[in-house]
Amino acid sequence: MSVTAAEGWKAAGVRAGTKPSGELDLALVVSDRPATVAGAFTTSKVPSAHVQLCRPRVAAGHSRGFCVSAGIANAFTGEPGVRDAEVMASAAAAAVGVEENDMLVAATGTIGERLPMDLVLAGVSEAAASLSVDGGAAAADAIRTTDAYAKTAIRTIEIDGTTVTIGGMAKGAGMIAPRMVPQATLLVFLTTDASASAELLRDVVTGALPRSFNAITVDGCMSTSDTVLLFANGAAGVNAHGSKAFADAVTDVMAELAYAVVADGEGASRVIRVRVTGAAGDADAYAAAREVAGSVLVRCAIFGGDPNYGRAVQALGQAGCALDPDKLRIGVGGVELSVGGEPTGRVEEAAKAIAGDGDVIIDIDLGLGSSSFEYLTCDLTPDYVRFNAEYTT
Amino acid sequence: MSVTAAEGWKAAGVRAGTKPSGELDLALVVSDRPATVAGAFTTSKVPSAHVQLCRPRVAAGHSRGFCVSAGIANAFTGEPGVRDAEVMASAAAAAVGVEENDMLVAATGTIGERLPMDLVLAGVSEAAASLSVDGGAAAADAIRTTDAYAKTAIRTIEIDGTTVTIGGMAKGAGMIAPRMVPQATLLVFLTTDASASAELLRDVVTGALPRSFNAITVDGCMSTSDTVLLFANGAAGVNAHGSKAFADAVTDVMAELAYAVVADGEGASRVIRVRVTGAAGDADAYAAAREVAGSVLVRCAIFGGDPNYGRAVQALGQAGCALDPDKLRIGVGGVELSVGGEPTGRVEEAAKAIAGDGDVIIDIDLGLGSSSFEYLTCDLTPDYVRFNAEYTT
Repeated sequence: MSVTAAEGWKAAGVRAGTKPSGELDLALVVSDRPATVAGAFTTSKVPSAHVQLCRPRVAAGHSRGFCVSAGIANAFTGEPGVRDAEVMASAAAAAVGVEENDMLVAATGTIGERLPMDLVLAGVSEAAASLSVDGGAAAADAIRTTDAYAKTAIRTIEIDGTTVTIGGMAKGAGMIAPRMVPQATLLVFLTTDASASAELLRDVVTGALPRSFNAITVDGCMSTSDTVLLFANGAAGVNAHGSKAFADAVTDVMAELAYAVVADGEGASRVIRVRVTGAAGDADAYAAAREVAGSVLVRCAIFGGDPNYGRAVQALGQAGCALDPDKLRIGVGGVELSVGGEPTGRVEEAAKAIAGDGDVIIDIDLGLGSSSFEYLTCDLTPDYVRFNAEYTT
Repeated sequence: MSVTAAEGWKAAGVRAGTKPSGELDLALVVSDRPATVAGAFTTSKVPSAHVQLCRPRVAAGHSRGFCVSAGIANAFTGEPGVRDAEVMASAAAAAVGVEENDMLVAATGTIGERLPMDLVLAGVSEAAASLSVDGGAAAADAIRTTDAYAKTAIRTIEIDGTTVTIGGMAKGAGMIAPRMVPQATLLVFLTTDASASAELLRDVVTGALPRSFNAITVDGCMSTSDTVLLFANGAAGVNAHGSKAFADAVTDVMAELAYAVVADGEGASRVIRVRVTGAAGDADAYAAAREVAGSVLVRCAIFGGDPNYGRAVQALGQAGCALDPDKLRIGVGGVELSVGGEPTGRVEEAAKAIAGDGDVIIDIDLGLGSSSFEYLTCDLTPDYVRFNAEYTT
């Protein structure tokens, strides 16, 4: 159901022809009434044409929905690319009968290619004609590129005795290392039927990002097109203002989708959780966790079933965080392997603990303070390399 | 010949037993007279025990030689590891009859393991007994770990009518992304028979690093043990002070060895040269070149023979350098592919240009200024992943 789980939302996923595979590749999602919106975009200095178009529209705080094209990113396409994005948005707005500025657009796929506008516009018309309250699954399918499967998440909460639903969908498996700020080719769309001011939505997204999409990496490559959007249309008849349950539920949906992106990382066989504790400060905890999660050597070791904590030490050494090797404790798979540079001799035990394909936890206690951070990544496999040597993004 | 090409230098490479493979694994290099030294070490916050021991000794500016153990890095081994490094240095100094502080040591291999001192000390004795002016090749072989081949380089110049020789050896194929400062598991050793003050050697190494070892990456992982040392023993009877030819020759030897490290990058099939021009400043040129060279997506694309400039654009977007997409020009294999976001339509031509296994040049003109930088890397292949999933470093 994804983005159509909440009341008042319809969606469609159709074949426009922008994916060479001939699969669903255009999604349209629309609220049946006015809605508020907030979002976050890539911090790339080469933001895609769609990101450029959407920033001011999202800043305005209101929207009726969005349209997504998969296969071509419409990034690094200059001024003509921005005009294509505008035409796509205008056509979608007209097809569903909403104000032009109330339609948002996104695209994902190859960088440096123009959109085939004839195919996109025909797709928009077809999608508008097939909007449905059951269209969430098709929409989640249509926004995929290298994703092995569609990623959706739903939470239902009560606010003042009224049921509120938050549904979301995400795409992304490669070029994943978002560093989004509220102004991130990860595309994430959440809809709710609570009513909420754009300011509240902005606060909720900003609060959820550091522990969801900004805490994952597949390949260390931040996309030109990363986008997270949260829409609220009030169809449930209750306002989310002051509801911690609402903020928590949005955070849960975003965290579930973020985990799903890493689990579906290109070529990945398993998820790695890098848990840093005892850092001198929050920035240090983040830097340490990010550097270890970003290490290709650590990720190769885990693919090989090797609890190689020395590679985590290497990464910590270049992380830029406060560090005292004598206070450092490292464990893998719940088995402590080194205390201040003294090996515990439990490597074989750790290797047994991480056998199989479950999540692997790397615990790093810096022993300096009380700040902590968890960063998610996936193992690096020969399939990742083969895939990215053959596929053009 | 490597480090024994210059006059007055002897070397040996023996089997101490620290490499499971049973290959040569301990090198000893000694000058037959007093020599000066300067060097550069890793900026890792977890420097290896050997790096900790050598920093003050190199700062003193004089040395008679060095001893290298391969197989175990003696990094993240706490205070006991530092004592092991001291004992190794003392034993080597005693075996060749020089002052203890005049002996430097290095180690490379697995992080987090103690050295088997009985094997190392027996190896030191054997090496001391087999020192020879023909020992350079064995020494270069003995310092290898995952290296497919030994890396050596030699230059001969004239200073005031006198022939001066500079010989060097390097090891390194993985965990290569040095950022060394004069105080970089890349190990590099250069010897010369010119005489030179430690200050001059320091200036020459500092000048050569940015365009040699600090301009290469295999996997983005800076080692705990990176070390470059340049020794001068004056056996040729001429001083290098004020000789531009000397500084140039040292830079040439370092650049040749740096290229060899990338060419022998784990699993690599070819070298990639990322050439950034038109940057607003030197730091921007460096940041842009480093980010593109560090991109696993770019490196996979080149392995696949795909001149995928969109992935270079992605990397530039997160490089942190001043950037105007409309002024950006990108070419691959000498074929211009995009001018300010407008594709030139020459992708097939570029694909033909980079077919085969020669060096691939990625040209990036930022169009903003006059600063430039070239960064070297290698392609990322399935062999890299398989290798690092099976080998413990």
